[in-house]
Amino acid sequence: MTENVNESTSPPLRRYRPNSMSNSIAYFGLLLLELILLAIKFVYTTIESTVRIFLPPLEKSLVDEIVLITGAGHGIGRELAITFAKQNSIIICWDLDEKGNEETKQILKLQGHKRVYTYKVDVSKRQEVLDAAALVKQQVGNVTVLVNNAGIMPCRPLFFQSHEIIKKIFDVNVLAHFWSLEAFLPSMIENNHGHIIALSSMCGVIGLPNVVPYCASKFAVRGLMEAMYEELRVGDTKNLKSEIKFTTVYPIMVNTGLVKKPRNRFPFLLDVQEPEKVANIIVKSMRRNYKEVSIPWMLLPLDRISRLLPGKFIQNVKDFIDTGLDPHTDD
Amino acid sequence: MTENVNESTSPPLRRYRPNSMSNSIAYFGLLLLELILLAIKFVYTTIESTVRIFLPPLEKSLVDEIVLITGAGHGIGRELAITFAKQNSIIICWDLDEKGNEETKQILKLQGHKRVYTYKVDVSKRQEVLDAAALVKQQVGNVTVLVNNAGIMPCRPLFFQSHEIIKKIFDVNVLAHFWSLEAFLPSMIENNHGHIIALSSMCGVIGLPNVVPYCASKFAVRGLMEAMYEELRVGDTKNLKSEIKFTTVYPIMVNTGLVKKPRNRFPFLLDVQEPEKVANIIVKSMRRNYKEVSIPWMLLPLDRISRLLPGKFIQNVKDFIDTGLDPHTDD
Repeated sequence: MTENVNESTSPPLRRYRPNSMSNSIAYFGLLLLELILLAIKFVYTTIESTVRIFLPPLEKSLVDEIVLITGAGHGIGRELAITFAKQNSIIICWDLDEKGNEETKQILKLQGHKRVYTYKVDVSKRQEVLDAAALVKQQVGNVTVLVNNAGIMPCRPLFFQSHEIIKKIFDVNVLAHFWSLEAFLPSMIENNHGHIIALSSMCGVIGLPNVVPYCASKFAVRGLMEAMYEELRVGDTKNLKSEIKFTTVYPIMVNTGLVKKPRNRFPFLLDVQEPEKVANIIVKSMRRNYKEVSIPWMLLPLDRISRLLPGKFIQNVKDFIDTGLDPHTDD
Repeated sequence: MTENVNESTSPPLRRYRPNSMSNSIAYFGLLLLELILLAIKFVYTTIESTVRIFLPPLEKSLVDEIVLITGAGHGIGRELAITFAKQNSIIICWDLDEKGNEETKQILKLQGHKRVYTYKVDVSKRQEVLDAAALVKQQVGNVTVLVNNAGIMPCRPLFFQSHEIIKKIFDVNVLAHFWSLEAFLPSMIENNHGHIIALSSMCGVIGLPNVVPYCASKFAVRGLMEAMYEELRVGDTKNLKSEIKFTTVYPIMVNTGLVKKPRNRFPFLLDVQEPEKVANIIVKSMRRNYKEVSIPWMLLPLDRISRLLPGKFIQNVKDFIDTGLDPHTDD
């Protein structure tokens, strides 16, 4: 029944149709060889990743990289600007909040960092993103490190989130990533050099109450980054090896103003993090070309292990830890 | 440093501040008790889930349930209408395509199923969804099973997807779910009876080339369902036990017209599925109140195991299996 479908839609070369005994033997011989190769790769990559735990990769230089940070006017964005500046990168700050953005610039200047540029941009508006990107290219050059950091997190039960807010969450937290990729990825691909960093959240890994649309948007960022990475990776094998790197970041609770009412039973386990520390971990992770990092780091592996355990037990653990976000009252 | 943050933002009752020796002993005694209880729950839930593999839960009756299916005019949506009708449910078909929707109705009528209603609705438009929902409530009654099935999948490299299409993907594949939840979940909560089914995709679990925005949208559906489930579950513990069920479905490749150019090296492993078979699995899974199901079923557990293995090895495996979606040329 399904056979017809495939015959008409699959490229013929990818479908195996044995037409003689010797062809079959050759085919299965090659397949066996591929499987043996795969087994060797398994052993090799397992050893490699175990070694990597104790001997992490060297941190790459960011000197003279042109780093663009969205939402640089406060919180993690501002701390990222400061941290990248310490690496002697050229810093481009984007924010809708001109005042906060100028403050970030002044902080960098006071620290002796002269190469910093600010632009007022609403990243949820595609045309604004493309126009500002053209200006950046003209005034500074090709962006080589893009940090999609801007985001909003209205925190309340779903039925108290207005439809305008739900749309806005997707415009700022997801669609803005598409517009900045449209603006900056092509020159990275052309020069085969660049790094995309996206701020997802642990809410993009685990669904939590009071932040349903936010969780959906941060899951979307995870999917976008994973698919984009694969698109370039698979595209490569046909052309040349792409050197463009991707880092997706999953912080849990950061003291940036977004997290207003954290509920936390065991603060020593999952405390609210300072943006300065979070920015340091992000820059260190991207310099090591990590594809993903949660903050604290053990949350991502813990989530992966937990997904293999009975769902009901994980619910019991969640209730025991009792950590989350209570609804805001003022936004 | 972080201590200040928590003191000002955490509700005081959730923070432990030992003020005497006996209080400390009581606190840690209770904590130990909770941990022992958790260990017992682990053993119990593990045994329970193991037994469930061989003795799945009974399939619940769907007689007289009011089942609303979006995108019922063709593909999985139509087959779901047929499959639910066999369970003697009342069927409400929503589709933008009036002709296809009427065809679905005729098929049901020919099979002797009289209780079927059709509405022309563009689910990406909130007001249309709310208006049609009001009409459904008046003409048929409270929807008790909502199937968010409608979706689009433009398939090409990201830079060949127009910004209008990217927005449309989120409007249809994600935001429409929010509007239908807004319309139908409140009466389910009121009556403490209902079931939400969402069609995500294996593209909502694994990022794939040529479908970057689609992957992001289907990841979002996963996050939305997981967070909504948690919101009702945690909300419950404070009030009463909610009987509303959630089922998220992750099919891989279904022969519905969306999948135009599958690339499939081992068809016996991951063949394009017929919508009829997929609809059967979905209805069976929701009748068993499964929270998640991939089609074929082993893909979700395989993904979870693979996420614990070295990333590079998984890339090797992906390249070996070489299954995915080649770009469309005509949409």
